[in-house]
Amino acid sequence: MGRILVALGGNALQRAGDHGTWAEQVAQMRLTARVLAGLVAEGEELIVTHGNGPQVGTLLRQNEIAERELPARPMDVLGAETQGQIGYLIEQELTAALVQAKAPRTVLSIVSRTVVSPRDKAFAHPSKPVGRYYTEAEARTLRKREGWQMEYDGARGGWRRVVPSPLPRRWIEGDALRKLLPRGWGAHIVPVVTGGGGVPVVERGRGMFEGVEAVIDKDRTAALVASALDADTLVILTDVPGAAVGYRKSWERWLGQVSASEIRSYLRRGEFGGGSMGPKVEAALSFLQAGGRRAIITDPPSLGRAIRNETGTRIVPD
Amino acid sequence: MGRILVALGGNALQRAGDHGTWAEQVAQMRLTARVLAGLVAEGEELIVTHGNGPQVGTLLRQNEIAERELPARPMDVLGAETQGQIGYLIEQELTAALVQAKAPRTVLSIVSRTVVSPRDKAFAHPSKPVGRYYTEAEARTLRKREGWQMEYDGARGGWRRVVPSPLPRRWIEGDALRKLLPRGWGAHIVPVVTGGGGVPVVERGRGMFEGVEAVIDKDRTAALVASALDADTLVILTDVPGAAVGYRKSWERWLGQVSASEIRSYLRRGEFGGGSMGPKVEAALSFLQAGGRRAIITDPPSLGRAIRNETGTRIVPD
Repeated sequence: MGRILVALGGNALQRAGDHGTWAEQVAQMRLTARVLAGLVAEGEELIVTHGNGPQVGTLLRQNEIAERELPARPMDVLGAETQGQIGYLIEQELTAALVQAKAPRTVLSIVSRTVVSPRDKAFAHPSKPVGRYYTEAEARTLRKREGWQMEYDGARGGWRRVVPSPLPRRWIEGDALRKLLPRGWGAHIVPVVTGGGGVPVVERGRGMFEGVEAVIDKDRTAALVASALDADTLVILTDVPGAAVGYRKSWERWLGQVSASEIRSYLRRGEFGGGSMGPKVEAALSFLQAGGRRAIITDPPSLGRAIRNETGTRIVPD
Repeated sequence: MGRILVALGGNALQRAGDHGTWAEQVAQMRLTARVLAGLVAEGEELIVTHGNGPQVGTLLRQNEIAERELPARPMDVLGAETQGQIGYLIEQELTAALVQAKAPRTVLSIVSRTVVSPRDKAFAHPSKPVGRYYTEAEARTLRKREGWQMEYDGARGGWRRVVPSPLPRRWIEGDALRKLLPRGWGAHIVPVVTGGGGVPVVERGRGMFEGVEAVIDKDRTAALVASALDADTLVILTDVPGAAVGYRKSWERWLGQVSASEIRSYLRRGEFGGGSMGPKVEAALSFLQAGGRRAIITDPPSLGRAIRNETGTRIVPD
């Protein structure tokens, strides 16, 4: 048995077609929690992290709609709020599922900050769309008034704000946790950390961290956290059972166990696309590079079998 | 030197007359953080908790304004969101202040749930006003449509929703923390816990907690946490330098060091009022009853001297 960090994608919390109600998020998380509790019941030590895309989108929009009456809060603050929201949801559902699975643990959600470099090239090339779609006239106004970078999305025929997506360098709260937690903590707690990749901050001086309007890829931070807390397996949970070459083409082939160098060659020839699977494979590779033993990409229903190396894409060192 | 739990009141985060911008909250917290860091530099171990009244009010209002486009989230969820928001703010400002004070620590904000009893009498008598003021017609609609209990506030000439304010019974995450943290953890971390009194939940079965639409007095939870984490001193920070008998009358007298039974007698004869100082004195007494050594009620500028027993109201066991 080992120590596993599971990174929950958006679909672990919200299904396509959902209206974004709290009841829907609860129902979806309940299913995921059962799967996670199953791992713990089989003797695995568990760490959880999660995305926050739809949730932070909702908060951005609420702030926008209410702006005439109530001052809007910056994006780093909204990110922290989603950590509270989703951290609470995971505490609630996973606590219950763990008791049901006869493997009670205290689920402990920690408000997490992630340091990024102010010299990260991403700051010169904002690329990550956030929030809603705007008309061209609105986009022009926002560019001028807020200094936002706006990008046209041809597929949806609208403009969106794009923000930088810098690489995570350090999870601030991690050093202390690593030092303080006694051996065998996995028998008592399940930490929930760096939600949404962690609140992005830059270090302006020793101990002086400043929140920035950016988005950190939650899987990249997950790789960092998995290393920091000595997890041997990193699981990236998404809405497909694994990674495929020739995805949705006639020669489509799902990847099972695959070496780091093999999947890196697929990545380099553009098999996985920039927006979806590519960054997950990159995060998996960065975990192995830092000494991780296994990275798994799969969906919640397949997770139990993937851990036993029976399904899903399992990436292992060369 | 000892272990101190400081409960930050609303004014530690937001001053009367503020517009509720994030910059204002940062500026106010920066002042408070300096005072807290001073305690740590003098060798005290520190635990922090905080209120969330104005912040949860803002989220309620934003949810209400945006409700036609985006489903509103329940109050327990909004409470968790304020823990993320304020937990992040305290992490940011206190981390910096601690480094400045040459007493670096990792500030660790934990999303906290507090168990209340479903048989608490407060559920039959909702008393705590939340959210904005409504007209009589609106109040009637909300009572019918949402099942809210509404109360008329003569002073402001409007109707407000009132929710139950049950007593905190157990801080769920506290048991694990208490077990896991090694001796001397105060030299490494400053935990920030049970913001807004903790998200109120009732236990429906073993491990099955259900969020409820209620408000827990953050000072009552602070007293519980102070006992759970073996703090010897509970500090309730507010906007007055202490408790007074004959407050704002010609015979006003500020209380310095005072025994539990003495201040209890003032409480019984109604010296402190129900809405403001009374609950703080009750929280202080409940801490002493559970074995605490000293409870202090004071404002941020007086805190350093109050800890040295030079000012503020210090309540001690008989």
